[in-house]
Amino acid sequence: MRQSQLANKILREAPKDEQSPSAILLTRAGYVEKLSAGIYNFLPLGFSVLKKIERVIREEMMALGGQEILMAALTPKENWQKTNRWETFDALYKLKGFDEKDYALAATHEEIIVPLAQKLILSYKDLPLYLFQIQTKFRNETRAKSGVLRTREFIMKDLYSFHTNQEQLDDFYEQAKTAYFRIFERLGIAKQTHLTFASGGTFAKYSHEFQTVTDSGEDVIHICSKCGVAINDEIKNEMPKCPQCGAEDFETKKAVETGNIFKLGTKYSEPFDLKFKDQDGKDKLVILGCYGLGLARIMGAIVEVCRDEKGIIWPEAAAPFRIHLINLTKTDEDSARTLEIYDRLRKTGLEILFDDRDISAGEKFAESDLLGIPFRIVISEKTLAKESVEIKKRSEKDSALVEISQIFGLLK
Amino acid sequence: MRQSQLANKILREAPKDEQSPSAILLTRAGYVEKLSAGIYNFLPLGFSVLKKIERVIREEMMALGGQEILMAALTPKENWQKTNRWETFDALYKLKGFDEKDYALAATHEEIIVPLAQKLILSYKDLPLYLFQIQTKFRNETRAKSGVLRTREFIMKDLYSFHTNQEQLDDFYEQAKTAYFRIFERLGIAKQTHLTFASGGTFAKYSHEFQTVTDSGEDVIHICSKCGVAINDEIKNEMPKCPQCGAEDFETKKAVETGNIFKLGTKYSEPFDLKFKDQDGKDKLVILGCYGLGLARIMGAIVEVCRDEKGIIWPEAAAPFRIHLINLTKTDEDSARTLEIYDRLRKTGLEILFDDRDISAGEKFAESDLLGIPFRIVISEKTLAKESVEIKKRSEKDSALVEISQIFGLLK
Repeated sequence: MRQSQLANKILREAPKDEQSPSAILLTRAGYVEKLSAGIYNFLPLGFSVLKKIERVIREEMMALGGQEILMAALTPKENWQKTNRWETFDALYKLKGFDEKDYALAATHEEIIVPLAQKLILSYKDLPLYLFQIQTKFRNETRAKSGVLRTREFIMKDLYSFHTNQEQLDDFYEQAKTAYFRIFERLGIAKQTHLTFASGGTFAKYSHEFQTVTDSGEDVIHICSKCGVAINDEIKNEMPKCPQCGAEDFETKKAVETGNIFKLGTKYSEPFDLKFKDQDGKDKLVILGCYGLGLARIMGAIVEVCRDEKGIIWPEAAAPFRIHLINLTKTDEDSARTLEIYDRLRKTGLEILFDDRDISAGEKFAESDLLGIPFRIVISEKTLAKESVEIKKRSEKDSALVEISQIFGLLK
Repeated sequence: MRQSQLANKILREAPKDEQSPSAILLTRAGYVEKLSAGIYNFLPLGFSVLKKIERVIREEMMALGGQEILMAALTPKENWQKTNRWETFDALYKLKGFDEKDYALAATHEEIIVPLAQKLILSYKDLPLYLFQIQTKFRNETRAKSGVLRTREFIMKDLYSFHTNQEQLDDFYEQAKTAYFRIFERLGIAKQTHLTFASGGTFAKYSHEFQTVTDSGEDVIHICSKCGVAINDEIKNEMPKCPQCGAEDFETKKAVETGNIFKLGTKYSEPFDLKFKDQDGKDKLVILGCYGLGLARIMGAIVEVCRDEKGIIWPEAAAPFRIHLINLTKTDEDSARTLEIYDRLRKTGLEILFDDRDISAGEKFAESDLLGIPFRIVISEKTLAKESVEIKKRSEKDSALVEISQIFGLLK
């Protein structure tokens, strides 16, 4: 795409109402725009990153056997009353319609998917069942001050698993854990993301969070120096040793919860009486697990982790474009040559942003570093004289002169 | 996908609380599930159809030069006050957060995109600009009784165009009209969908709706017998002749509004003071157009139009799968043969639902007709004896025996 046509304006100054580096960079570079505290609009570049993250998550959920659905956000009071969460779940936004019925904006979907699953699950033959959605949730947050890391409206991937017994759940839970690490690996933040033991609720002793280390995070975790597994500060007192390897040496860091997984057991199948017929024809309660990931929060976490003093450094899987082609030529002839290279690259299917604007080289470089696209290709009078372009990875210091005939093979 | 694993249960009986054929069929076949009046969950099959419709719409919006964004649903009162719609727009769901601020759930996004565009549009060089999103809207409907044709929560594609002058808007408006017809054409309902003159609001004499004829529709339109253009009943009195061809002979029908396009002019740029600097350095108000399409409503309209007494008949572009492969074999050897054909078809990238369940042929055929997948392929002892399969289009009466070696080429 030609940058002259991209709906984007770079801000020279950091926005005054943002504190976290991710919010500052994403706003300055034109990925997001704050509408209100904890509420963001996603501009073309930001929307593109969201879609990239969504694609990775969707692929991994499908690989787990997940089937994608879409549940409503506007949900009836009765569903929340069944689990007593209408009164106890503070983060629920509540509203009333002309029909005089009370609704909650879903902050999570156990209360909706369990009665839905009732229509799909009759016998043990229908289990296990894995349903997920990528959908917008709402939470009435008292504070919302960390940019896209904690918002009142957010896109979440929530997967729910349904099982005949605990072993089946335990087995799938481990598979989901592995899938989560693969997602963080593909999105470039696996090294900074720690499997973290946290409080478990009614049915499991512990739940697991995926905590990405950053000073902008609101959580405190204690990371085992030996194996890297972490313990959430909220349960550190009950867990003096590493639950994974038994070591007792921890490093304490701030982190943001980018994902979490829960063994729900029968916590939600009980109130909704979600049962299946087992092989002996007996009715038994279905065993559940749930698995969440926040898409914009992951986007923010990536920026927290992948950046330098000049701007963002997107990992390839999350980048809005793969290549930032920068035209520094001045004559019509050289410009035509540049355009030809752009067209050829584009036609090979490469995602490429072409800076065709009439601004200084210095501005182009500064904006390119801020935007953080993985590969920068510069074409100038000088490079063209050598039948070459200059290629530089955003994550590296050095650039290389590459012959034009070579770049198509190199970038494939 | 194997049907034995698909999260779907067919209902033998029509749901008692649905009147429209589309709601009855979509519910019975397991595409959607009603959560509450006017609020639906989309099961795997329904989600797949939504994604297909989304793909067609997205492609056509990109072809128009549209850039995709994502705006928030939770929107501040102030934005709606600027246009006086906080008090006058009945369909707004309103709510209050812990921050004691008032919010509306966006029923449309002019109030959000105009201040957003202010950050993107500085001079005439930034125009025209086309921004669109595919996003969930909320409307406090007093009645919601036509299944997915009128809901309180719905996914909408809304495109907004920004222009320097009226001619630029007029020109793009015509392009958008053409793109809309292409969308309806690709989705198989162009013949039943009429460009319809409707009331225009403040800045344009008329707006245009796209009305799809169905008895389940809540609108009444008068279709010109000569050219097919229609007039919405609400303005028929002011428009005795066809505005397109001048004819005076009309057929009156019920229809559902699947799309609408508006010339907004400066209606929204005025209250938000959305201006651009023209070539003479003068500040001028930006001219707007907006263009909506309801995705689930289109899904419902397709079913209203494309069905017979046995079930749905999906057009290929909207179908959840392209092929419904039905296994009627009984021996292990024949089943293995069938599985091999399934695997080969699947590996060519064809979207295929494989009915591998242990139920009667009659049930399989009845469910297949209800589901409405475009191609049905039956494999039985009889067809295998002839090294063949039986292929039938859902939209046609007759089936054909096709040699196994031929089907791969045929379906590509």
